[in-house]
Amino acid sequence: MNDNLDADRATFVTHLECSLTGEHYEADRLHNLSRAGRPLLVRYDLAAVAAALPRDTLERRATDLWRWRELLPVRRTEDVVSLGEIETPLVPVRASGGAHVLVKDEGRLPTGSFKARGLVMAVAMAKELGVTRIAMPTNGNAGAALAAYAARCGIETIVFCPEDTPEVNVREIAMQGARVWRVNGLIDDCGAIVGKGAAEGRWFDFSTLKEPYRIEGKKTMGLELVAQLGWRVPDAIFYPTGGGTGLIGMWKAFDELERMGWIGAKRPRMYAVQAAGCAPIVRAFEAGEEHAERWEDAHTVAAGIRVPRAVGDFLILRAVRESGGKALAVGDPAILAAVDECARRDGLLLCPEGGATLAAYRQALRSGEVDEEEQVVLFNCATGLKYPMPPADRTLDRHGDIDFDAL
Amino acid sequence: MNDNLDADRATFVTHLECSLTGEHYEADRLHNLSRAGRPLLVRYDLAAVAAALPRDTLERRATDLWRWRELLPVRRTEDVVSLGEIETPLVPVRASGGAHVLVKDEGRLPTGSFKARGLVMAVAMAKELGVTRIAMPTNGNAGAALAAYAARCGIETIVFCPEDTPEVNVREIAMQGARVWRVNGLIDDCGAIVGKGAAEGRWFDFSTLKEPYRIEGKKTMGLELVAQLGWRVPDAIFYPTGGGTGLIGMWKAFDELERMGWIGAKRPRMYAVQAAGCAPIVRAFEAGEEHAERWEDAHTVAAGIRVPRAVGDFLILRAVRESGGKALAVGDPAILAAVDECARRDGLLLCPEGGATLAAYRQALRSGEVDEEEQVVLFNCATGLKYPMPPADRTLDRHGDIDFDAL
Repeated sequence: MNDNLDADRATFVTHLECSLTGEHYEADRLHNLSRAGRPLLVRYDLAAVAAALPRDTLERRATDLWRWRELLPVRRTEDVVSLGEIETPLVPVRASGGAHVLVKDEGRLPTGSFKARGLVMAVAMAKELGVTRIAMPTNGNAGAALAAYAARCGIETIVFCPEDTPEVNVREIAMQGARVWRVNGLIDDCGAIVGKGAAEGRWFDFSTLKEPYRIEGKKTMGLELVAQLGWRVPDAIFYPTGGGTGLIGMWKAFDELERMGWIGAKRPRMYAVQAAGCAPIVRAFEAGEEHAERWEDAHTVAAGIRVPRAVGDFLILRAVRESGGKALAVGDPAILAAVDECARRDGLLLCPEGGATLAAYRQALRSGEVDEEEQVVLFNCATGLKYPMPPADRTLDRHGDIDFDAL
Repeated sequence: MNDNLDADRATFVTHLECSLTGEHYEADRLHNLSRAGRPLLVRYDLAAVAAALPRDTLERRATDLWRWRELLPVRRTEDVVSLGEIETPLVPVRASGGAHVLVKDEGRLPTGSFKARGLVMAVAMAKELGVTRIAMPTNGNAGAALAAYAARCGIETIVFCPEDTPEVNVREIAMQGARVWRVNGLIDDCGAIVGKGAAEGRWFDFSTLKEPYRIEGKKTMGLELVAQLGWRVPDAIFYPTGGGTGLIGMWKAFDELERMGWIGAKRPRMYAVQAAGCAPIVRAFEAGEEHAERWEDAHTVAAGIRVPRAVGDFLILRAVRESGGKALAVGDPAILAAVDECARRDGLLLCPEGGATLAAYRQALRSGEVDEEEQVVLFNCATGLKYPMPPADRTLDRHGDIDFDAL
């Protein structure tokens, strides 16, 4: 029996702090960016968490996201919202060419993407803090996750997406009760509209990292992965990087687990994977910059990582560098080839962004950046079913003579 | 750490038997239907299973499908195939009108549907028994699951589907390396082609219930559900019924669990849900028949239950009657309204077949067939993302004046 959703559990948030200046902000309050215009990070009394939560207590719980309640910001059990945030499986893939390459299949989460992790937490906190109207820019999957959880809580939602957002995402968002607008621009253009409305007091701004709790949900990718691997980190992680919340979140998770004494000092090399047609983090990484300039004329088949400017750029670059990893760009043909080969050989249909991590891994394997014996985790951030697939038109007339040799 | 996939575990199959005559068939052999033309059921030494597998041993294992290995037919650990068959979550739905209605969200399984349960088992057995070429008729999701698992094992696959099978299913099957043919007919017309080829020795026939191991995979729905509910059965189960493998499988699971002493004699009332445009089981149920005649001119938006004739008809009818349940038909408008309302109110996007169970539940609630305080489980057999959704066309010009009041 899973009591993660209804058992009261102790919580340990002490405060939030600016990721740039370290300035403190009060817990249990609505926040967007810090006064310095940077993301806020939630801080916990980790010694108290470690004392209150023996590892074997955690191990006896059901494995879903709410298992980690003591390391999450929601205070009241009645504010927990859920559509079944299961622990996502690790699936070995031979198409990688590596001997120990696992795809963490985040497409199994509610609404079919890892966005559910961030949004379930942000919506639960919005509920706890009395928000009644939310707006968000999205390339598709985040909007779907927001719409689903907000629908469950009765929170009104307005979503803005680039005009070429896949039809399935737009329809899914609308089905789940949100109002969704296509905007003739990119995600940061949508973000500007959301920001303007928020400044006028029309809604609460849920943009990536402009709201401090999505990152707490995303960090469960790191917590969960370490638990799945028997309290060890893998040698390397390849992560499709748009806004980078998940990469920043995992890096925070590893730090918290070490402070609790549950893992040691070893970290996976973090590879931030971008598309060649939109690679601001890669450009900044290679130039040795701390911040990334906006990428002009962004285009890629992997719409989820078509993010020209990331407000958490310096956090992504810092984690990648501290980890000994890299920021890597892959072209659309390599992305599509990786998706195709993984489906045909491994029976696993990746999303384009997941395909990008596989393509980047293969590139890194060829260049010697990773060794084929290393344990590597690739993040497939959404179900491949949401994305266009090539037509397959073989037809057969059941009334005619069937040539079985030709089937 | 999950060792369900690589730990050797004892297995307990004794034989197979004809579901109609009880005639015995040898274990660990390729089989299709019995000599009486009926499905074969796998039998186990359940006393030995109970002795070998204390319930607390099972409870300590990871919760995926392979947790149940002692109650499954695969003998050799190296024949276990997997894409991450997680335990699917139970999600409460308010749109039901009932106080304790849970949707078992099978769309979280590999390839996005409950077909993965049956096909992972059938493909593992095909691998164990040396099959190299498989053919199957499908309304879509079963073909996708077969293609994925067969790709992983290097087994050649040919799939036949009705011409109006949703495009996403056809493309998904092809992406995963199978050859897929659209046939100008219904699923049983496709089945006739598969049967003809099998008779000629061109492939092994994987049709629903014509192969004995899919039902063993599907029975894990029953095993899992009972474990999730704390070794209790719910008051009622609403199951979308085409071929009925899952309903038959769950009924078998409850029987096996009782023989092992893990549950008592109580059974859920089983409601076999069909679409009004294709309801052969409902017609037979109401007429008191033991078998169901073919339904002519079948049509419904819920393609997965558009099965005019089920080879396991008598097993479905028997389980429904023994359980004190019923066979219920719902119209397409009620199905679509249920899908819509569940998405808007509960943030859960059902497939049409899942919508049918919700519509049938609401109908049963109105008629007094179920009480609103009863614990009821509805099976959502696939992710709603695979199905057409209505368009949502609001566009906004970011260069124009934005009327925030109108958003």
